Amino acid sequence: MDAEILTIGTELVLGFTVNGNAAVMGSMLAGAGVRVRRTASVVDEPELIAEAVKAALERCGTVIISGGLGPTRDDMTRESVARVFGTKLNRDPAIVERLRDWYKGRGVLNMPEANLVQADVPEGATVLENALGTAPGLWIESNGHLAVLLPGVPKELKALMESQVIPRLQERVSAGAPTPGAPRTVIRSRTLRSTGIGESAIADILGDYQKQIGEKVSLAFLPSTAGTDLRFTVWDLPEGEASGALEHAGSWLLSTKIGTRIYGEGNTDIAAVVLDKLAAEEATLSVAESCTGGLLGARLTAIPGSSMVFVGGVVAYENDIKLQLLGVSADDLTTHGAVSEEVARQMASGVRRATDSDAAIAITGIAGPDGGSADKPVGTVWIAISWRDAERAFHLQLPGDRQDVRERAAQYALDYLRRILAGTV
Amino acid sequence: MDAEILTIGTELVLGFTVNGNAAVMGSMLAGAGVRVRRTASVVDEPELIAEAVKAALERCGTVIISGGLGPTRDDMTRESVARVFGTKLNRDPAIVERLRDWYKGRGVLNMPEANLVQADVPEGATVLENALGTAPGLWIESNGHLAVLLPGVPKELKALMESQVIPRLQERVSAGAPTPGAPRTVIRSRTLRSTGIGESAIADILGDYQKQIGEKVSLAFLPSTAGTDLRFTVWDLPEGEASGALEHAGSWLLSTKIGTRIYGEGNTDIAAVVLDKLAAEEATLSVAESCTGGLLGARLTAIPGSSMVFVGGVVAYENDIKLQLLGVSADDLTTHGAVSEEVARQMASGVRRATDSDAAIAITGIAGPDGGSADKPVGTVWIAISWRDAERAFHLQLPGDRQDVRERAAQYALDYLRRILAGTV
Repeated sequence: MDAEILTIGTELVLGFTVNGNAAVMGSMLAGAGVRVRRTASVVDEPELIAEAVKAALERCGTVIISGGLGPTRDDMTRESVARVFGTKLNRDPAIVERLRDWYKGRGVLNMPEANLVQADVPEGATVLENALGTAPGLWIESNGHLAVLLPGVPKELKALMESQVIPRLQERVSAGAPTPGAPRTVIRSRTLRSTGIGESAIADILGDYQKQIGEKVSLAFLPSTAGTDLRFTVWDLPEGEASGALEHAGSWLLSTKIGTRIYGEGNTDIAAVVLDKLAAEEATLSVAESCTGGLLGARLTAIPGSSMVFVGGVVAYENDIKLQLLGVSADDLTTHGAVSEEVARQMASGVRRATDSDAAIAITGIAGPDGGSADKPVGTVWIAISWRDAERAFHLQLPGDRQDVRERAAQYALDYLRRILAGTV
Repeated sequence: MDAEILTIGTELVLGFTVNGNAAVMGSMLAGAGVRVRRTASVVDEPELIAEAVKAALERCGTVIISGGLGPTRDDMTRESVARVFGTKLNRDPAIVERLRDWYKGRGVLNMPEANLVQADVPEGATVLENALGTAPGLWIESNGHLAVLLPGVPKELKALMESQVIPRLQERVSAGAPTPGAPRTVIRSRTLRSTGIGESAIADILGDYQKQIGEKVSLAFLPSTAGTDLRFTVWDLPEGEASGALEHAGSWLLSTKIGTRIYGEGNTDIAAVVLDKLAAEEATLSVAESCTGGLLGARLTAIPGSSMVFVGGVVAYENDIKLQLLGVSADDLTTHGAVSEEVARQMASGVRRATDSDAAIAITGIAGPDGGSADKPVGTVWIAISWRDAERAFHLQLPGDRQDVRERAAQYALDYLRRILAGTV
């Protein structure tokens, strides 16, 4: 089954808003085995919307549309799509009642009349109830053409896709299998996350990976400040074969020298991995941050339940704080500088002592744009990890701007602790 | 002048990557007065790319394309566009030499031969030099049709747009003014940022704003966890009239009751505003964070030069840290709980004392998903601000999930300090 995605909104086309909705729709459709090869966005003009809907339907029969279902004069999707299908809009009394209830539930007794257009339904369309907002989704089908209209509010769009659109489309994907009774095919991907090793170093180690993973699997390298994600993808395979191929590819990757650098799958945050490992040891963790200024603590506490492991720490941005709250030696600070192995180690032991924790991470570095020198250029970072009876320090020279250096430093620090816990560093 | 945007890449269509490039191109083109009403993305298939380029050129004459200029077999943009223009590709020796130098500069003496396709240039095209990467941009023009090809790496794309594409297009926009010699028209927007006040409360206060800002200016409300941005936009006005209309609209907004809630323009971070105000007072700042876990420190230290003002602080996630590092009273902690006015105030005074700073912000709250009670539900937050001789505490009940509550709490805390410094709270 083929489909196109159409997102409607002037703010998307003019780039005031990044089009997260198209990404959500694309990945959910691909996951369901719907083949999407094209997406488009148009501004809020009825002629353009109608033209884009018509072109998509002519090319592939199905178009999934988001945006333009609100109550304002900018919201023209319902009308434009009804025109393409040659049907008229009828006001649905059940939706009108639901709208009034929705506003009443929020203390608005006299709902603005403008909202009533959200109750307009093209003749013959199915209403997809939207539990999170006022504009319902619409499923319009006629003469082999299918248009699905969804609200542009991200949470509402996602919920409607999950609960209503994907299940209906999956039935068609199955029904449309090449031979009746043959298994439906899917597009699937599996992502393994590595950090602390560059894209090209990974490529060198993996060598001619295509032989290993098989011709049906593609491998993409996706670098970011969090590391390099390795994404395997299979297209149009029966479900069982697809998961088998991805399983095989992943196992092979984990068996290579890259294996110890893989910290998780999918969207896993390395902070969650480290917290889990420490929780299993019934250990607590503290942090002492200079150049990252709280970023590492923020990463750790973003994870629900982190309070089981993470106790807190010290943001020692100014040198005085390093002396007074972490007990760093003034002599070492003068002799070696704030960005040095000695200071990093004393920050780690100092915060462990101050917080009485089992593990500590300390980061000190030069994030830039100023503060670099010939000896210690921007990107110079020292990380110290204190864990039970041992203490290790690591030197890094990180690329990128201020934000990159800080993000990479936090990510490396978490990975050093992960690898110390795993015994692979 | 009209143009369409075409972004090429399977990862975009399948939603593995959110399409930030389309947003960057859209906003830069709109800023230059190029009218964009449509964008599209297609997967890495030569037929689809060629078809999309052809359709865009037929509709509006100009298409700005990103992606598919790399060295791998997935990169088909050059070939596909050359086909649409009916020209052949020639290998450009100057680019070949630049490529070899690029790799040599990075210690790779034998550049993989696959990279040479990046030196292929459609006959008659202009090469747009890419200082940040290996794939140059290409400017192809013939029979009134213009296609601009740009790399998909975001930093390279942005730099090429700024340095080469926008200046060239702006010349045409000027040249294409409706009457020769008439001023060119532009699309412009101006964003004023508010926080601490909801979208609907703003709408109530502003009332019938259209009368005030004039019919040529539109106003959009853009809510996020940072507050509500108010974006004024004008379309197709001569440059002078456009800036006059936006100036007028902004001044009017600042003169309303909303004025004191506006903390900046464009992309201004409130953290930078607070740091500037404290720097002007030659004052220093520290933080004590519980539920935000370092987020506030990370926000402040993300700003270059923050070390002039920000000294550091304590992440007091566990209660013991509040007692030991901040000197919070154990009795108050037991009697009132960690999320209380008393504890927030003692965290602020404690961190000020420990760091010897002139100002301090303390945040304690329940970010969820667990930890809420009937008395103190998820989203309950206490903020205390200590500044010179005064201390103020604020209670909030914030909506949203864990991340939302944490982000909003940090933003509110910065705004309370900003308003205390401005004398407007």
